[in-house]
Amino acid sequence: MRTPDELRALVEAYLGELALTPELHGQAESVRYAIESPGKRVRPVICLATAEAAGLEPEAALPAGAALELVHCFSLVHDDLPPLDNDAERRGQPSTWARFGEGIAVLAGDALLAEAFRLALSYPTPHVGRELAQATLGMIGGQYLDITGSAPDEATLHRLKTGALFAASVGLALWVAEIPEPQQRAWREFGGELGLLFQIVDDILDGDGYVVSHGADGARRLADEAAERTRARLDGIDADISVLREIVDGLAVRTA
Amino acid sequence: MRTPDELRALVEAYLGELALTPELHGQAESVRYAIESPGKRVRPVICLATAEAAGLEPEAALPAGAALELVHCFSLVHDDLPPLDNDAERRGQPSTWARFGEGIAVLAGDALLAEAFRLALSYPTPHVGRELAQATLGMIGGQYLDITGSAPDEATLHRLKTGALFAASVGLALWVAEIPEPQQRAWREFGGELGLLFQIVDDILDGDGYVVSHGADGARRLADEAAERTRARLDGIDADISVLREIVDGLAVRTA
Repeated sequence: MRTPDELRALVEAYLGELALTPELHGQAESVRYAIESPGKRVRPVICLATAEAAGLEPEAALPAGAALELVHCFSLVHDDLPPLDNDAERRGQPSTWARFGEGIAVLAGDALLAEAFRLALSYPTPHVGRELAQATLGMIGGQYLDITGSAPDEATLHRLKTGALFAASVGLALWVAEIPEPQQRAWREFGGELGLLFQIVDDILDGDGYVVSHGADGARRLADEAAERTRARLDGIDADISVLREIVDGLAVRTA
Repeated sequence: MRTPDELRALVEAYLGELALTPELHGQAESVRYAIESPGKRVRPVICLATAEAAGLEPEAALPAGAALELVHCFSLVHDDLPPLDNDAERRGQPSTWARFGEGIAVLAGDALLAEAFRLALSYPTPHVGRELAQATLGMIGGQYLDITGSAPDEATLHRLKTGALFAASVGLALWVAEIPEPQQRAWREFGGELGLLFQIVDDILDGDGYVVSHGADGARRLADEAAERTRARLDGIDADISVLREIVDGLAVRTA
């Protein structure tokens, strides 16, 4: 089994060499900039680790993992735009619109989303792309609830805004590994918990969200409970989940 | 065979009843607004007519046709944004950003694109979605060349910006009808000419593009030549192309 760091290196190499559609012409520069913005590559690493736990070589899940990362990049590029979150900086670098202008950044996000589907559709089964489309729509719905302040509750907001793409990180790997739907349930319960764990820890690091609603100690307690549930779900899977367990442990105590 | 008007009515009914992903929550309102903005539905009508000429019931191509229309709507919603074409009006109504604000309009375009892939992926073959992704990327590349004024020539610009989605209107129908790739060639040559015909006539109606570069008479002559080539390509297809012929004749002389 590959370690999480080895999986991350696979993902970085694949993204670095990714051939974009030639018809994008000069638009490719801003797309490449968004992809190469420093990131943890959490979603593709989870996808590759799930695929390996399910019996595949992790390389087989690279197009699916890259598709998840491109959807994540698309959401950052569009969310950073002035009429949405108005963030001129992302991880110490100019955000895509601050670097290339708003119009090019709108198109860059569009191209990232279309390239993500191109990658997801490189598999013979349409299930990979189908689940990616559903997750993307959930994520967009979550962003709508967030910017309009119209979420019915915190859980619904996070299940959509962050959780949908985390759950898909597990789900896409299951389709790539051709795990029949009736046997996907334990894996999917794990994927469902994982996104919530990531979100609570993210809020603790940023001092917002769950920290505002539950206080620092309350948020830490919620994170510990989410980590426990995520580990319990993993234990319910009949496979070698050691690397996934290591990823969960890392996400629970991460400091960046 | 259904007439072009009957096909258009099928498309309108399908789009009007289209169930959007429930996870979009309130975002669905702006998506629906963009879909219901008055339009000729040219691309889905071509898709349905091609499918029927290829031996299918046209209803079988409705998800593919709707996917093409949603990609077209997505491109209009984003192109109308202030940092791109800055159009506050579209066919006598407020454009999506003018009605719902820029942030919601960015998300509406994103949702239209993701819904388009959801529809294209309702087929068992991934080819429908693959061709839609390629066409979308070509269209985005064309928009980039247009707004940056960096197109190598007029033909490249239009082949991408308008032509890619017209060619896909034929191409998606071929995959739905399961026409084997070696037998798609004559159909695809027709699809390639069709987009150029549409663009030249569009420029004549708007008084821009080909009218600026070739004068009113020159553009009319180019349109007539494009219509001739499109008809010649149709005649090379071994199928009942009477309805497609009627659509081409209508596009060549349209006044709106």
